[in-house]
Amino acid sequence: MAVYVYKFGGTSVGSVERIKAVAERVKNARELGHQLVVVVSAMSGETNRLIALANETQKQPDARELDALISTGEQVTSALLSMALQEIGCPACSYTGGQVRILTDSVHNKARIRSIDSEKMRADLEVGKVVIVAGFQGIDEHGNITTLGRGGSDTTAVALAAALKADECYIYTDVDGVYTTDPRIEPKARRLDKITFEEMLEMASLGSKVLQIRSVEFAGKYNVALRVLSSFKEGKGTLITYEESPMESALISGIAFNRDEAKLTITGVPDLPGVASKILGPIADANIDVDMIIQNIGEDGATNFTFTVHRNDFARAKSLLEATCEQLGAKKIICDDTIVKVSIVGVGMRSHAGIANTMFKTLADEGINIQMIATSEIKISVVVAEKYLELAVRALHAAFELDKEPAGS
Amino acid sequence: MAVYVYKFGGTSVGSVERIKAVAERVKNARELGHQLVVVVSAMSGETNRLIALANETQKQPDARELDALISTGEQVTSALLSMALQEIGCPACSYTGGQVRILTDSVHNKARIRSIDSEKMRADLEVGKVVIVAGFQGIDEHGNITTLGRGGSDTTAVALAAALKADECYIYTDVDGVYTTDPRIEPKARRLDKITFEEMLEMASLGSKVLQIRSVEFAGKYNVALRVLSSFKEGKGTLITYEESPMESALISGIAFNRDEAKLTITGVPDLPGVASKILGPIADANIDVDMIIQNIGEDGATNFTFTVHRNDFARAKSLLEATCEQLGAKKIICDDTIVKVSIVGVGMRSHAGIANTMFKTLADEGINIQMIATSEIKISVVVAEKYLELAVRALHAAFELDKEPAGS
Repeated sequence: MAVYVYKFGGTSVGSVERIKAVAERVKNARELGHQLVVVVSAMSGETNRLIALANETQKQPDARELDALISTGEQVTSALLSMALQEIGCPACSYTGGQVRILTDSVHNKARIRSIDSEKMRADLEVGKVVIVAGFQGIDEHGNITTLGRGGSDTTAVALAAALKADECYIYTDVDGVYTTDPRIEPKARRLDKITFEEMLEMASLGSKVLQIRSVEFAGKYNVALRVLSSFKEGKGTLITYEESPMESALISGIAFNRDEAKLTITGVPDLPGVASKILGPIADANIDVDMIIQNIGEDGATNFTFTVHRNDFARAKSLLEATCEQLGAKKIICDDTIVKVSIVGVGMRSHAGIANTMFKTLADEGINIQMIATSEIKISVVVAEKYLELAVRALHAAFELDKEPAGS
Repeated sequence: MAVYVYKFGGTSVGSVERIKAVAERVKNARELGHQLVVVVSAMSGETNRLIALANETQKQPDARELDALISTGEQVTSALLSMALQEIGCPACSYTGGQVRILTDSVHNKARIRSIDSEKMRADLEVGKVVIVAGFQGIDEHGNITTLGRGGSDTTAVALAAALKADECYIYTDVDGVYTTDPRIEPKARRLDKITFEEMLEMASLGSKVLQIRSVEFAGKYNVALRVLSSFKEGKGTLITYEESPMESALISGIAFNRDEAKLTITGVPDLPGVASKILGPIADANIDVDMIIQNIGEDGATNFTFTVHRNDFARAKSLLEATCEQLGAKKIICDDTIVKVSIVGVGMRSHAGIANTMFKTLADEGINIQMIATSEIKISVVVAEKYLELAVRALHAAFELDKEPAGS
């Protein structure tokens, strides 16, 4: 008997109507003879409503209390889904994260799962019940309620699939799979039948917000077959798997982009050992994540140092960098928050040369100036002016023939 | 150092604004050097909102899931109150019922408390924290979330006061104490400074909905001094105590009434042993609570049997009784859901004769026909037609001089 974990996001359970539709889908799957564990998010809008209450009450809401507060959203949905299933004659039982002992560390608001006790769930599955678990939440060793961070319900689903050694983990969402790029930018974007964990990680972190990145890491680590598919229309979605199709001839799988970046450059930095840490130290201390980093020798043997941060952190990073500039006796600061990052991602890069060149040539042919370049084993990212985003994505999509099914698949 | 348990009802915490006002009150009490445990209800309207969702989802919401669902309301308030206290510099920590191990039986929707582990709370109190506990909820021995029934937050407060051996338990509500009767019916109604547990029990069960009846039983049993007072205006409220004032000369303490009753009579029942259980058995099996019961010999040696139920159960009780009527070969059924119960309550009855007569004469003088009578040691209840409710209450209030302070107090 196959065990599946299903996860439904906030829009999929956004109303009683939709919860009933989810119940029908779950009931049908159970009637095929599967054992099912269902993870649910809060009804769409609910988490934001609760966070607004917290912000009204306390300027900087206490992390522990915030977890106690917002974890109620998923608890509500899980109880309602259980009721909806029972109403149509499908035995079901709901649990909070704490009740199935999803034990986490004590880092409130972004806790990490340590272990799960699957005994209760197995007992329910054995007697034919559908098990429903409130996503996004756990409990620490002292019994405090913790949450896993935004999108944490995906992580809950994958962790439960790993603990139960489930056959597959289905992530139901409002998109019907992972696309070669965002269809709103390139209408010719094509849904991928399959993508590797590594590619998915690069796609996710680069802004294709289909899955929480930690859930993909988790799935890769515990070898959980993960499928992303739509709650609202039929289809097989996209399977995320550790297998590379040996016959796969696609060079790259997709094009990701990120509009949320801003670029900061400090020029004329005296080139002494430890400069990088002197520049980035204050940024890290302020809890600002840095994405791309480039250091070049400039004129006079002094160094030019450039990095990108999230646009939300731009103002803070800029003022920190201004202080550093003065302190280091550097020349000046150049800032730009009208940039975007465009990346091509694909395991095919490992075995195929010339991909970087095709990318750079394609952009050059369109007259797009590349401001920064960063590469990893399976992706190449470039920073370009924001106005070129759509043009760059479409040109690359065509150049790598992503609208066509790969020959070997 | 005195330990107090405060309980705030739904209207007292009905908005962030009000939660902040509660936080101020709690902070002030703490600054007087008291150790404080605060029990909160769900924000007003929240429990009803959740129940509406449940009813939309399942015709007869599953009891276990309903508890998981509605217990979130109190969890939300307790986290918000903790944030509000921290915001004004008062250390605080919130807990769900399960987290302070309010262990109950497994009767969902109306569970009874078995034990409480006060260790965590004591540790917090020792280091100067205000402890906030979500009311109305507990956990059974299997870890399932349970709730204590409507108004169960009062019971939580009293149970915590008993477990912590608190000096007093303050129930903050939207009324400023217990009155001789409902001031909306009799404007001359007077706030009582003191009332005994027994009187309070009779008043509460008869419809003076100030406190949940089980919380009063609990307070009596564990000798917890209970005070009802207003969240919104200053005042000493009403102390509920086991002491009877020896000099108290009041004959009765108050007049309670209940509009929610309906009366059912089955006539011409063959008078055989076991008739009462044959009539009431199916009613009890359907989980319908019966209030007053009267059995009289009628014509031909056959019995007339009358009882009252909550109006919500009237239709169900009637159809059950129709089946019983046929089965027993009884004559007919007479039903009336336009009746009310009016009761006078007072420990003074024990030592004073003639009170019943005063009651009956007062009603007769007003031309009010008494349909049923029931008596206990400290109360006399009559059933009258609904249209006489206000008249009966005002006439009795005047007859027993309840608008005047008792001479001995």
